[in-house]
Amino acid sequence: MTGQIMPFWLKQRAFLTPQRTALIGDGEKVTFAELDRRARHLASCLAGLGIKQGDHVALLMPNRVLTVELIHAIAYLGAVTVPLNTRLTPPELAWQLNDVNASFLIYDAVYSDKINGLRDQVTCLIHDANCLKGRRHSNVNLKEHIDLDDVHTIIYTSGTTGRPKGTLLTFGNHWWSAIGSSLNLGLNRNDRWLCCLPLFHVSGLSIIMRSVIYGMTVVLHDKFDPVRVNESIKRDKVTMISVVTAMLSAMLDNLSDPGYPQHLRCVLLGGRPAPLPLLETCVSRSIPVYQTYGLTETASQIVALSPDHLLAKVGSAGKPLFPAQLRIVNNGKEVKAGEVGEIVVKGPNVTRGYYKQEEATAQAIQGGWLYTGDMGYVDEEGFLYVLDRRDDLIISGGENVYPAEVEAALLTHPDIKEAGVTGMPDPQWGEVPVAFIVTRPGAKLTEAELNQFCNKLLARYKVPKAFYFVNRLPRNASNKLLRRELRALIRQQG
Amino acid sequence: MTGQIMPFWLKQRAFLTPQRTALIGDGEKVTFAELDRRARHLASCLAGLGIKQGDHVALLMPNRVLTVELIHAIAYLGAVTVPLNTRLTPPELAWQLNDVNASFLIYDAVYSDKINGLRDQVTCLIHDANCLKGRRHSNVNLKEHIDLDDVHTIIYTSGTTGRPKGTLLTFGNHWWSAIGSSLNLGLNRNDRWLCCLPLFHVSGLSIIMRSVIYGMTVVLHDKFDPVRVNESIKRDKVTMISVVTAMLSAMLDNLSDPGYPQHLRCVLLGGRPAPLPLLETCVSRSIPVYQTYGLTETASQIVALSPDHLLAKVGSAGKPLFPAQLRIVNNGKEVKAGEVGEIVVKGPNVTRGYYKQEEATAQAIQGGWLYTGDMGYVDEEGFLYVLDRRDDLIISGGENVYPAEVEAALLTHPDIKEAGVTGMPDPQWGEVPVAFIVTRPGAKLTEAELNQFCNKLLARYKVPKAFYFVNRLPRNASNKLLRRELRALIRQQG
Repeated sequence: MTGQIMPFWLKQRAFLTPQRTALIGDGEKVTFAELDRRARHLASCLAGLGIKQGDHVALLMPNRVLTVELIHAIAYLGAVTVPLNTRLTPPELAWQLNDVNASFLIYDAVYSDKINGLRDQVTCLIHDANCLKGRRHSNVNLKEHIDLDDVHTIIYTSGTTGRPKGTLLTFGNHWWSAIGSSLNLGLNRNDRWLCCLPLFHVSGLSIIMRSVIYGMTVVLHDKFDPVRVNESIKRDKVTMISVVTAMLSAMLDNLSDPGYPQHLRCVLLGGRPAPLPLLETCVSRSIPVYQTYGLTETASQIVALSPDHLLAKVGSAGKPLFPAQLRIVNNGKEVKAGEVGEIVVKGPNVTRGYYKQEEATAQAIQGGWLYTGDMGYVDEEGFLYVLDRRDDLIISGGENVYPAEVEAALLTHPDIKEAGVTGMPDPQWGEVPVAFIVTRPGAKLTEAELNQFCNKLLARYKVPKAFYFVNRLPRNASNKLLRRELRALIRQQG
Repeated sequence: MTGQIMPFWLKQRAFLTPQRTALIGDGEKVTFAELDRRARHLASCLAGLGIKQGDHVALLMPNRVLTVELIHAIAYLGAVTVPLNTRLTPPELAWQLNDVNASFLIYDAVYSDKINGLRDQVTCLIHDANCLKGRRHSNVNLKEHIDLDDVHTIIYTSGTTGRPKGTLLTFGNHWWSAIGSSLNLGLNRNDRWLCCLPLFHVSGLSIIMRSVIYGMTVVLHDKFDPVRVNESIKRDKVTMISVVTAMLSAMLDNLSDPGYPQHLRCVLLGGRPAPLPLLETCVSRSIPVYQTYGLTETASQIVALSPDHLLAKVGSAGKPLFPAQLRIVNNGKEVKAGEVGEIVVKGPNVTRGYYKQEEATAQAIQGGWLYTGDMGYVDEEGFLYVLDRRDDLIISGGENVYPAEVEAALLTHPDIKEAGVTGMPDPQWGEVPVAFIVTRPGAKLTEAELNQFCNKLLARYKVPKAFYFVNRLPRNASNKLLRRELRALIRQQG
């Protein structure tokens, strides 16, 4: 069975609105016609290097115009993009490349030191403005059409099991996400969406997808800098921006004007539920902040506040995007308004599952409904209030940290008998991971040693900011670790 | 195989944006919540009267709020709406009701005189504000979800074969039409689309569909009156309006201001290609006129000018709506830019075919491409220029008149041996049909007699405005009528 067939998005966009600006970034403006020309050229180069339909091509790239070109070029070949988090350590990268059966890794020179150990495992191609020149494959068939059921991207996300899982995102998932968002927020020919979130996250990637579907300009920042973002909003006539709480706070701290220019019509706020005082500050300063709720598995936001309810429903993440659906489930049953339960969602933007993980897929998606593990409730009118992301998830500076993954890394240390990880509030990052350690008898471990040990294995944002040595970890009758009770141990220690 | 499943549109709209205005018409404002309440109530009444899933329910209704409620109510029951042209004669109505296997006909009191002869054929239900009260079916299952592959509407359109054919339009056809249009024209929460085209045409009906998909207000006029339309645009803060050339001319003739208010951002112009002077007048008066090209079979526009090219491409119908496609074909092959051929289109808004007409369907749709019969060319950049609607089609005041249908009616007269019908330019209606008659030997027919005869069989707009008696009709070697050469006969007569 095939899904809806449609013209290749970038090709169609270059045909329909060739002279519109697709991208502003790296000091240049790129039209859709030019972006398409470059992506086609790049695709033929990649074909010359051996990349073909069905290949899994991993990217270790910063937020550059080149990266956007690559994403389209890979799709033009019918290959699948696997965007890698650039903050991962070499062992973490090796694990994901192996798990996803990547045949190629395309990386930027700035990450050269990370890939030395990976060359045996995968063909590594360095990519900068000049590197692929002259290798052009003269006779390559670029995709004319796409099938919405075909996989576009595999993005890794962790779960409670310790190891990340590759979320399959189809063209259709990206398409319906873009359409659902446009039906909620509207669509304007003058829209310009500022992207200062990483392109290896679905939050950043989805902006690039919307760009070719809508014919919309993306203002691409290589990283988040609140001063530069504030300047860019003004200078580049930005109308939309996606941020997480910590970023919005930093932007407001660095904003000299009372508010933002009128043309900024939408600040999409993802990640953990925002603190109410921050939202109220935005309301009082007429900053149009829309709380949203989404996951990698939903190809970005699936629930979002609408312009109709911006002021009346401060604190809510809104309602499901047309045509998605939402339920709150407790003990296998949908609960009434006001009752807390697990957030369960359905819709054409929801992943069909995890790569090679049938069991995990069957557990997460039941009858078409994705069980998110996050807790929340809906009010009488159906507005979602997210109480907390799933109880073991830590969101630090916009990055998801999964305690089970950090614990698994700690447990590879010969002197560690048990490990438990949880999040602690942090003024700069929102949250940071901290670890609780039970050492083996006779072992003498220091915090400095453990810090060094973790830095080798884990991306920096996953490394616990504190290590507490304890006699035993809180567990329930069936010996399951009770992460929620870990924090209480600090007080006991104090 | 089923298509994409999604929540029932009106239900979802009433959930997402209950307090937004859905309709302004008949002297009232109706919110989406209220429209949904009424449609549900009406659906249970209709169920009480025996209408059930899969039924074909014909509507003979004017442009009223009630009609919109009915269209949603019928869909809520899983039945199919068959909107009937209210200008048809009783014999024409009878034919369509029979052809479509309608089990019910719902009509407005103003058309009571038309349906007397139909009562044996179909259950006729009169519908006005009070009539269906008290018959409510207490226990009816209203649709919670729709399948985009399910048929929503059957709309009759004629062809070269003389008899109208029922075009099947699915929920998906309407959905993709709405989405394609929004990706071209943008979507604004303040949009208000004025509908003065009949709801029994796809041009009017599609506005109602967009309303529930977008969450957009429709300003519904019971008929086209240029003075009232001009007033309404101002008073009701209309942003979009769909018209045909004759309507736009009349609006401009009655406009005292130099142009329209800024909030009118889009005048969608359908039907035959507009005369260039009219378009140039609009440009000079800053009236944002977008030429479009569409058919019943494409669920309204499938090619439309975009805001980017409004001024540079005056006279073009634009490019296909994302994600539809367009080809110009001559002798079975796609021709180059600039070369004239048949307009052939493809996309998810294109009908899957005609009801019970496998042969006609197979002829019209080949390999997913719809052969429109209309002629045109694309320029080097891919912009469509429609040269003429299919050579036998007459468009009179926005209504399609098919010569073969009029000829077939004429040939039922015992004194007529041959009949040929073609269009003549008309200052008021754009075009009017005229007939060329070869009488049987010895017959003495007058124009007045023929006029009376036709008025019994044909809707008024199909009745020839002139009858020319000739000795023979122009035919080619295989005896096929050459309608294009008919006009020359007038000059010969003169």
